[in-house]
Amino acid sequence: MRPSGRAPAQLRDIRITRQYTMHAEGSVLVEFGNTKVLCTASVEDGVPRFMKGQGKGWITAEYGMLPRSTHTRNQREAARGKQGGRTLEIQRLIGRSLRAAVDAKKLGENTILIDCDVLQADGGTRTASITGACVAMVDALTFLLNARKVKEDPLLGLVAAVSVGVVKGVPVLDLDYDEDSSADTDMNVVMTQHGGFVEIQGTAESEPFTFEQQQAMLALANDGIRDIIRQQQLALGW
Amino acid sequence: MRPSGRAPAQLRDIRITRQYTMHAEGSVLVEFGNTKVLCTASVEDGVPRFMKGQGKGWITAEYGMLPRSTHTRNQREAARGKQGGRTLEIQRLIGRSLRAAVDAKKLGENTILIDCDVLQADGGTRTASITGACVAMVDALTFLLNARKVKEDPLLGLVAAVSVGVVKGVPVLDLDYDEDSSADTDMNVVMTQHGGFVEIQGTAESEPFTFEQQQAMLALANDGIRDIIRQQQLALGW
Amino acid sequence: MRPSGRAPAQLRDIRITRQYTMHAEGSVLVEFGNTKVLCTASVEDGVPRFMKGQGKGWITAEYGMLPRSTHTRNQREAARGKQGGRTLEIQRLIGRSLRAAVDAKKLGENTILIDCDVLQADGGTRTASITGACVAMVDALTFLLNARKVKEDPLLGLVAAVSVGVVKGVPVLDLDYDEDSSADTDMNVVMTQHGGFVEIQGTAESEPFTFEQQQAMLALANDGIRDIIRQQQLALGW
Amino acid sequence: MRPSGRAPAQLRDIRITRQYTMHAEGSVLVEFGNTKVLCTASVEDGVPRFMKGQGKGWITAEYGMLPRSTHTRNQREAARGKQGGRTLEIQRLIGRSLRAAVDAKKLGENTILIDCDVLQADGGTRTASITGACVAMVDALTFLLNARKVKEDPLLGLVAAVSVGVVKGVPVLDLDYDEDSSADTDMNVVMTQHGGFVEIQGTAESEPFTFEQQQAMLALANDGIRDIIRQQQLALGW
Amino acid sequence: MRPSGRAPAQLRDIRITRQYTMHAEGSVLVEFGNTKVLCTASVEDGVPRFMKGQGKGWITAEYGMLPRSTHTRNQREAARGKQGGRTLEIQRLIGRSLRAAVDAKKLGENTILIDCDVLQADGGTRTASITGACVAMVDALTFLLNARKVKEDPLLGLVAAVSVGVVKGVPVLDLDYDEDSSADTDMNVVMTQHGGFVEIQGTAESEPFTFEQQQAMLALANDGIRDIIRQQQLALGW
Amino acid sequence: MRPSGRAPAQLRDIRITRQYTMHAEGSVLVEFGNTKVLCTASVEDGVPRFMKGQGKGWITAEYGMLPRSTHTRNQREAARGKQGGRTLEIQRLIGRSLRAAVDAKKLGENTILIDCDVLQADGGTRTASITGACVAMVDALTFLLNARKVKEDPLLGLVAAVSVGVVKGVPVLDLDYDEDSSADTDMNVVMTQHGGFVEIQGTAESEPFTFEQQQAMLALANDGIRDIIRQQQLALGW
Repeated sequence: MRPSGRAPAQLRDIRITRQYTMHAEGSVLVEFGNTKVLCTASVEDGVPRFMKGQGKGWITAEYGMLPRSTHTRNQREAARGKQGGRTLEIQRLIGRSLRAAVDAKKLGENTILIDCDVLQADGGTRTASITGACVAMVDALTFLLNARKVKEDPLLGLVAAVSVGVVKGVPVLDLDYDEDSSADTDMNVVMTQHGGFVEIQGTAESEPFTFEQQQAMLALANDGIRDIIRQQQLALGW
Repeated sequence: MRPSGRAPAQLRDIRITRQYTMHAEGSVLVEFGNTKVLCTASVEDGVPRFMKGQGKGWITAEYGMLPRSTHTRNQREAARGKQGGRTLEIQRLIGRSLRAAVDAKKLGENTILIDCDVLQADGGTRTASITGACVAMVDALTFLLNARKVKEDPLLGLVAAVSVGVVKGVPVLDLDYDEDSSADTDMNVVMTQHGGFVEIQGTAESEPFTFEQQQAMLALANDGIRDIIRQQQLALGW
Repeated sequence: MRPSGRAPAQLRDIRITRQYTMHAEGSVLVEFGNTKVLCTASVEDGVPRFMKGQGKGWITAEYGMLPRSTHTRNQREAARGKQGGRTLEIQRLIGRSLRAAVDAKKLGENTILIDCDVLQADGGTRTASITGACVAMVDALTFLLNARKVKEDPLLGLVAAVSVGVVKGVPVLDLDYDEDSSADTDMNVVMTQHGGFVEIQGTAESEPFTFEQQQAMLALANDGIRDIIRQQQLALGW
Repeated sequence: MRPSGRAPAQLRDIRITRQYTMHAEGSVLVEFGNTKVLCTASVEDGVPRFMKGQGKGWITAEYGMLPRSTHTRNQREAARGKQGGRTLEIQRLIGRSLRAAVDAKKLGENTILIDCDVLQADGGTRTASITGACVAMVDALTFLLNARKVKEDPLLGLVAAVSVGVVKGVPVLDLDYDEDSSADTDMNVVMTQHGGFVEIQGTAESEPFTFEQQQAMLALANDGIRDIIRQQQLALGW
Repeated sequence: MRPSGRAPAQLRDIRITRQYTMHAEGSVLVEFGNTKVLCTASVEDGVPRFMKGQGKGWITAEYGMLPRSTHTRNQREAARGKQGGRTLEIQRLIGRSLRAAVDAKKLGENTILIDCDVLQADGGTRTASITGACVAMVDALTFLLNARKVKEDPLLGLVAAVSVGVVKGVPVLDLDYDEDSSADTDMNVVMTQHGGFVEIQGTAESEPFTFEQQQAMLALANDGIRDIIRQQQLALGW
Repeated sequence: MRPSGRAPAQLRDIRITRQYTMHAEGSVLVEFGNTKVLCTASVEDGVPRFMKGQGKGWITAEYGMLPRSTHTRNQREAARGKQGGRTLEIQRLIGRSLRAAVDAKKLGENTILIDCDVLQADGGTRTASITGACVAMVDALTFLLNARKVKEDPLLGLVAAVSVGVVKGVPVLDLDYDEDSSADTDMNVVMTQHGGFVEIQGTAESEPFTFEQQQAMLALANDGIRDIIRQQQLALGW
């Protein structure tokens, strides 16, 4: 029995609210149970220097947690004067995942800046961020199409993510904080709408994991992500 | 006629939502029209080194804007590696204002850390922050009283804040972004529940202002803050 | 009776020495009693990127305290690796105040960089800085006129500043360190030669202040600044 | 045919040289073909503050590339003033991997600091680092045992790592730089001597990868790591 | 003929003014011609952590140039967020030189912090700093003796410094900025009152220098420093 | 008798290995006994902004120590977020020394970036760095000549360096760590192939040194550097 009473293959309630704030070209509040992340997509003309002249677009992401989004307060990274290793790791993951969803050529020399800010954390903030950011990015692409800055839709398909793990020997889907902090293994999986893997990051927390456990976790993730993508599509009115 | 259609002495709709997030001892979403700030109050044992052994408590504040809370995206301060001058100025103001509302002796050697994070900006974020943070702080003080970490209520009274200004020659209350960016003079006023002034910060943006304009602005602020404090009291169920 | 023996409305001895150092286009040592600040104005061609192409000039300021300008030594900000919040707040105030004295259009695309470095501190360093920096800026404007980089004098009028406060219930002018550290309220006022207000920053240190006290402080400031501007004019030989 | 002429399941020549430098408790030069990493293990008394009083040891790692270990020179991170996201990500991975090889209780309140510095890079620096660092750590544990700072050997077993990928549709083992920069998918795998998985980090570089490709890569990694661990054992004289 | 009209072995006018500012235990304005440096010595109880428990004192120095002490404005190091290499090099030199003048055992666990801030630069700021800082340090030692924090005078003797160089083939003493910027060789020499060398730092700017030139420069420095030490003694009333 | 058994005028074994790593245009491992430094020279097109348009080349150097190149581990400067004063001082010295060996005009607008990374430290790392870096630079110049980016050889002659000191009253050549830490005086000398002095940096560690000691040290350095330059020539096959 999971602490939340969920079955092993059961997701938390997932809510995706578009146009959550008013200034960004894409603005999505994504909720996986009590985990709440505000994902905005900002459109900027041009691309960073290292990409200039290639006729390709750029998508990048930043991630942050509000200091008291967590059980005990974390020091504000802006006050500390630098982003921590975990933050950098997560925002690199978000950026790579979203770039996998887009045809950079069709995007042209435009940049989409994703910001994922965690308002409330209860496990799975990075996978929720990817899921919400993808919807915000779709809205930003629509903005670019409507503004005729982009001629053809650059979207290759949606991407979404979920965490899976082994808790007390049992493979489970979509861990909340309670499970996450006691998991033997924790794995984050990012997949496309078409069922391809974009990222797999599995970490043994206390015990090494076996080939079979890895298989079971991927199977859970595969099913979970299919459901999550359906939520993205509903939110987008597709 | 103001761009928003409001009368010169009319506040925007003010909403104060407590328990907005689940981890902090105090958590308030404050809205002044389209300006939305999440204010949390976190309780920590003990005080910073420079205050140790005096038997007094400490209240301090940090402020941040989500990168796309604004019309165009601002660089994330954590990524830039430092907080800007405006941020430091605002968080110093919030901290001073809240300390004016509390008897440090009665607080004992406890610290309350305030975080004000702007989710959506439309003018007046610093005054909204003070207003919301005060309510979050009251909840944190109640937590301390209930946990018997504090014996007697340290609250001296509520504090609240509002901006006033002179726009096209006319003194007006509670400027939104449109007015703020075209104001001749912009003044932020912080007052206590008992009608005393805690802070006055007035700046001539284009033209110096006169003694009479200053008087008129303070009168507007005085009335506006009285109404805002009523909203705080309603939110607190007083 | 004030600790210094001065009457409530009495300024300290004010001295303004031009050409104090030899390299800067404007170089002024300003003394308010024992407070001594070296203010230099440096002329540079062009304007910062965010102002280019508008045909307007730019004036900006930096402020610093020598580590042992104070009773006990302060850590050197260059060694700490960042400027503190108080420093940033003061230099933003100096910059805004001086920009209020100049017609940016007439200045053309030239920059004046003000440096205010406190050699010895005894209260009121920010108001002394504004007062001295204005004279240094006038010398820099004269340099620009003589060098024919500017055609018409951009000066709208002098600006000067003073602190006022309420000490043991009595409104007083031009607080020294002894008074400053025991004041109930501390207010910094910046005014133009023509009697307009540029900045008012009042802070209740222990007790909130009343509308009447605020009035009394502004009246003291108004008279004091008139005298200070006379000193500026004398120093400039006007 | 691979650019290096190797078969898909063929490792590069692996060399592990102990006592490469003279000061560190463990000092290993590890070579995977042309990739050369100097891995040192330094023993320090005590543990960081956040672990004090638990009776457990701590193992942590830092990673760096000499500026010209690569084809074109990279800016020195010490001169840039911060470690990049890739660096932080890799050193976190090395630290987690090594902690999985050790019983923290048996280590007692001792710290082992691992430094992995890349002298020459040709792909796979992070997996070479883990492989070499494990041997350096074993020497540091022997030092602790000989110095009687540790009573019982804390080593749970060796860990080693290798990269696998899909290049032009074919799963291959131990990618060099040429393959790495043209791979469809790149996966780093860390395993224990006992065949358990410690970390799996797979990234689709251009195309998403399939479940079957993931299986094939893991199988290659499993065989490769078995061989690498044999090299570690030979180097240790086991 | 030197640009200043001085003879090769002729110093600039040297002035040493004690008690230049009022807060520091030692405060000296030192002038070598147009080079003006404010040197303060601040006494603090105790020593830095790395020296604790040895019963010895510590003397350290910091150096800075006001932004417009030079011909063209230098960026403020506090604003840049770090001290440059030249600054660090100079302050390390000042600290070493002063420590050579003091018996650390007799100083006991007290710290003297030297600050050398250049108000106006015209060549030779580092040698002027050492010369002035030594006098400020003597005043700080007297303070410690009077306050009975030190029992026996820790001063081993005065130290002073001067620059020498080869300009257009001719060895000259005490270079000003004009000479410094066209010198073939520039050498800074620090000596004790008793004629011993504390530091020699010679740099070929355009041409390597010969053994004979080096000899000639040291002879000039030796005579010059003897005169400078006489100025220190006069200033101290010895 | 020296701790190493060497005669006062005897160098340690010096080895210079070219092409030590494969990517850099020049790559040299230099060994002075147990001191081992990897020196690479990287060629880049163009020059830094402050040198543009003068038709001259630029040579600059960076220096670092691997954290465990020393007896006890030093904190990694990249992790600390800045290079220390000693590091900056040394890399400035290396850069100046190498620039003295090259005709900047003949180099044209090309940059040579030197990296000196200490793999193992046993005294004299800065002088070993200069010695090895000069050879790496010669290889980079040859690369530029072969690539026809430079028409005429810019090399004016080799430079090399050695430390000398006074240990227990006796002048000695090429101090190792044991001697260095107990020396009365430590002097680093850089000379050209033609016998000219490029840099002399002498520091009294405990006792001031005399004119005669200074002479004796320079004589030792002169002989030692002649031998070291012969080693450079052998390594270069001259």
